[in-house]
Amino acid sequence: MSKTIAINAGSSSLKWQLYTMPEETVVAKGIVERIGLNDSIFTIKYGEDQKFEVIVDIPDHDIAVKMLLDQLIDLKILSSYDEITGVGHRVVHGGEFYDKSVIIDDEVLKNIEDLADFAPLHNPANAMGIRAFKHLLPNIISVAVFDTAFHATMPEVNYLYSLPREYYEEFRVRKYGAHGTSHRYVSERAAEMLGKPIEDTKIITCHLGNGASITAVDGGVSVDTSMGFTPLAGVTMGTRSGDIDPSLLPYLMDKLNIDINEMINVLNKKSGLLGLSGVSSDMRDLESNADKPEVEVALEIFADRIRKYIGSYVTVMNGVDAIVFTAGIGENDSATRARIIDGMTWFGCELDAEQNAKRGEELVISTPESKVKVFLIPTDEELMIARDVEALRG
Amino acid sequence: MSKTIAINAGSSSLKWQLYTMPEETVVAKGIVERIGLNDSIFTIKYGEDQKFEVIVDIPDHDIAVKMLLDQLIDLKILSSYDEITGVGHRVVHGGEFYDKSVIIDDEVLKNIEDLADFAPLHNPANAMGIRAFKHLLPNIISVAVFDTAFHATMPEVNYLYSLPREYYEEFRVRKYGAHGTSHRYVSERAAEMLGKPIEDTKIITCHLGNGASITAVDGGVSVDTSMGFTPLAGVTMGTRSGDIDPSLLPYLMDKLNIDINEMINVLNKKSGLLGLSGVSSDMRDLESNADKPEVEVALEIFADRIRKYIGSYVTVMNGVDAIVFTAGIGENDSATRARIIDGMTWFGCELDAEQNAKRGEELVISTPESKVKVFLIPTDEELMIARDVEALRG
Repeated sequence: MSKTIAINAGSSSLKWQLYTMPEETVVAKGIVERIGLNDSIFTIKYGEDQKFEVIVDIPDHDIAVKMLLDQLIDLKILSSYDEITGVGHRVVHGGEFYDKSVIIDDEVLKNIEDLADFAPLHNPANAMGIRAFKHLLPNIISVAVFDTAFHATMPEVNYLYSLPREYYEEFRVRKYGAHGTSHRYVSERAAEMLGKPIEDTKIITCHLGNGASITAVDGGVSVDTSMGFTPLAGVTMGTRSGDIDPSLLPYLMDKLNIDINEMINVLNKKSGLLGLSGVSSDMRDLESNADKPEVEVALEIFADRIRKYIGSYVTVMNGVDAIVFTAGIGENDSATRARIIDGMTWFGCELDAEQNAKRGEELVISTPESKVKVFLIPTDEELMIARDVEALRG
Repeated sequence: MSKTIAINAGSSSLKWQLYTMPEETVVAKGIVERIGLNDSIFTIKYGEDQKFEVIVDIPDHDIAVKMLLDQLIDLKILSSYDEITGVGHRVVHGGEFYDKSVIIDDEVLKNIEDLADFAPLHNPANAMGIRAFKHLLPNIISVAVFDTAFHATMPEVNYLYSLPREYYEEFRVRKYGAHGTSHRYVSERAAEMLGKPIEDTKIITCHLGNGASITAVDGGVSVDTSMGFTPLAGVTMGTRSGDIDPSLLPYLMDKLNIDINEMINVLNKKSGLLGLSGVSSDMRDLESNADKPEVEVALEIFADRIRKYIGSYVTVMNGVDAIVFTAGIGENDSATRARIIDGMTWFGCELDAEQNAKRGEELVISTPESKVKVFLIPTDEELMIARDVEALRG
């Protein structure tokens, strides 16, 4: 039977999910954590609730992958290495090179590494994962699935910043976006739920996790997205500020006596819901402290910034058929969904309170009368990776 | 007869307009330029197309004001200093102190000067103008009309940035906005044109000049505006970038080898329509070069960013009765108005092409069927200043 593995490699971690294809059945999944540190944690979940876990020093990604494959054979999940017919890697940044998933050859791998300038924490780690699988499984297809690829279709009007034009030409300064695989997955599902060819749909997808981004998907194509040159831009997030007046940087750097890198660190790590609330970046902590005035304001701001992006993307597409919520907060936090949509009656959006109280499954959460449909769709980036591998395996 | 003078003092200029009140008739207006430099230019326009101009060294604002008042008497526009019963000063920044115009006493003047941190180019110059008139006309009422005051009513959710909350508490980091007097004037006019009490109206005002800002006016009150802590934020402008991903600053500072202040200078002076087009920051130059691809994209981006703010402000108010265009571009550039509104049919906006081809007067430029009305309203900040003086003179 043909098996495909979807990989998300971090600098000290390797997250994976093993599929039987084309059935799209998850046969096992797991994570290796603390690679390169003492007491690495190696976990496999499989069967009905079975779990294998061991704590051992795993010095690098090559050894992590070897251990993973050997353990899958030991657990009789695989009969041999040959059973794996494809590996798909999540890659954070594809720059302007890739508007879809591609088979990884030497040139692709070099491009991924060269794009480290745009994603210094992620692309080198993704490349480590790719190399490790290439070493152990040199003869099977290896596919890169880029977080940016879905947004590479954006028109110039939406990806260009209002900066001297040569900054784009010389330094590739533009909007790249992120969470593309998730926005692609949920917009495809939403078109099916609308019962229309995706070419005829206008969908706004809200990927709301600790990172959050909103995308305008017109006819199945991303035409605009809230994250920018980096994932710092756009809406308020767990610890990220989203959009702010750039003049605040010199003002605060002077007041706080910090340099630009420390300033950006504050905007990435100490701002957003955490900074506003002073309590937590975690939505569950905030919802249970929503009676505190600072927390209430933080929650209102989170909803307000998302609602504003939705409104602006209705203008980008001159219409909207459906609004989709996905990812950790989008799938699980009915209060946030209500805060956002309840203020949009003029747009013809009406939530069904009973439906909206549910979570974790694909649901229509708007009323039958709602002119704009509102959907809850659990995202599945790993499945998209496996599908792209299967499609390119031909 | 009672006369009121409206003043807009810059660091080397003094712009003024003299009204007979309460008739609101402009009896003369003019500007003194190059104050403190050689060959200052002193101009008065009065009567039917009459003009007085002289080039002479004017060393400071006190001498400019003395020369102005004496010349108004020489030209028989005033019979004596006493005929002026009130002076109104445009002041750029009122911080969190002022949500409306106030009579200037020592404390107000000190606050204006203390707010120089927020408006280093403007508030000290405004204060120079105030002092000069106080010296010459010590006994008449002097009123400060703040660009920020109209926006001081914004709710916390809209004025707070998603930053550590103590930055607001300690450093007053928040959205202040600008062009408040203009947004106030045109929203009041728009409510009259709608034939409804302003309390029952939702109006989006687009002040589009070399600086540009969009405001959501709900029930006569500014509830959100696109400029931020400074006028750099918001939509694309003549030379300003508007909103960008803050992460672009360290990236570009490194690539260009410049410091944060040079970077902010680029964002204020070399970006926007000028940076994108490489041609000009002036809309007339751009419209006449609209066949060049870079210019076309710049014009599309300008319209797109404004349209997005309009869409987001429809969510802020959960509705909109009218969209208003004002200021240099908003009043005169029918092509820009069409670019913005023609993409908003879903919102129920429809321009009347014939009406939209006109300019320079108060006009309904939407069709009778248009669900959302679109108005062209020439702004008149000077008149608002004169009215506020008259109201406070009691």
